[in-house]
Amino acid sequence: MATSTDNGAVQLPEPTLRRLPWYLALLTTLRHENVEYVSSTRIAAEVGVDASQIAKDLSFLNIKGKTRIGYEVAALERALRDFLGFDERHHAVIVGAGSLGSALMADRGLHPYGLNIVAGFDIDPAVCGTDICGVRVYHLDRLADIARRRDVTVAIVTVPVECAQQVAENIMDAGIPAIWNFTPCRIRVRGNTVVQNTSLYSHLAVMYNRLHNVAHHQQGGGRR
Amino acid sequence: MATSTDNGAVQLPEPTLRRLPWYLALLTTLRHENVEYVSSTRIAAEVGVDASQIAKDLSFLNIKGKTRIGYEVAALERALRDFLGFDERHHAVIVGAGSLGSALMADRGLHPYGLNIVAGFDIDPAVCGTDICGVRVYHLDRLADIARRRDVTVAIVTVPVECAQQVAENIMDAGIPAIWNFTPCRIRVRGNTVVQNTSLYSHLAVMYNRLHNVAHHQQGGGRR
Repeated sequence: MATSTDNGAVQLPEPTLRRLPWYLALLTTLRHENVEYVSSTRIAAEVGVDASQIAKDLSFLNIKGKTRIGYEVAALERALRDFLGFDERHHAVIVGAGSLGSALMADRGLHPYGLNIVAGFDIDPAVCGTDICGVRVYHLDRLADIARRRDVTVAIVTVPVECAQQVAENIMDAGIPAIWNFTPCRIRVRGNTVVQNTSLYSHLAVMYNRLHNVAHHQQGGGRR
Repeated sequence: MATSTDNGAVQLPEPTLRRLPWYLALLTTLRHENVEYVSSTRIAAEVGVDASQIAKDLSFLNIKGKTRIGYEVAALERALRDFLGFDERHHAVIVGAGSLGSALMADRGLHPYGLNIVAGFDIDPAVCGTDICGVRVYHLDRLADIARRRDVTVAIVTVPVECAQQVAENIMDAGIPAIWNFTPCRIRVRGNTVVQNTSLYSHLAVMYNRLHNVAHHQQGGGRR
């Protein structure tokens, strides 16, 4: 259930929040195909989610489908982008300008989703002071200063796993309210700090295990 | 529950598979700190998972902790890496050498986790035939040929969302058994094809919503 607070902020259930970008992706595809209207039945078939669940998820937005015609594709796409915060600008920094950190700095793919990477941070003197794809890398000492001046709300953590907790402390001390953690470390945070974990390694582990099972089944002819 | 098949392959519950890399990350950190033994109680405190759950998760590995001393850090780290398949080599290709695809090709960070990116694919003539950080980009037409010759088991999908389903069809036609989908498209697959979704956009949506709520609470002084 979504819970409404005293001041009107809507706390959405996380499964709903995770599904909304799937609907948005489908609407973008449909718009590319010049489709004007889409029913929740069609969304259900394409996305693999129950139609009643879709109607419930979309009820959080201020948009109504028309009987027998469905939702207007362009309007629903706009409403979803707006609702998800993809049209706002969120200033982010990368902490750890190593391999993955540099790759994320070079990737402009998150920009259309409202994430604007304004600086990188590292402790390696060989990297500090350099530019990676137009983004300046600073020494970690300058985190609090730059976070305040650039109004940074998201710190992306791409340091080696054994440094992740210490870096999280630095980020909290710098007053940055959200941590996007790409390391497999389970970061412990204080107060209201928001943590989002994206563990590529966990996803790899799940994928390898399933692959291994498929291979076993094919060799051994076992049951599925 | 884990289910054992006729031919001995162990199908682990996905939550267990997702937690094992967290334990591995902690063990790597402890080894860096020259810690020799660790109890499940300590793992529990550091990782934020119940100690009994940890003992259950680790029971899938052929390794036993000693009473009162716990697990040997280096041995448990090796056992976890081996069990998770991080010490095997899995040949992967990137389909979609745009912004995120190129970034992943440049990122060597997945190499220590057993993922070896051997080629990229695209349809843009300006990109086909070029090298990105030593990885050659080919036209998508050559996918089946190269997948067979290089024994590719994982295709990483980083195309624009509206092309994702079509590209997934190409990947299945090429006989590649696993798809790591970085697009927000809900890919439909045939037969035994393994799909792992890593939706950075869904994670962003969840993070923005929580940030928004924190900001509302701080301005309005609402309840948590």
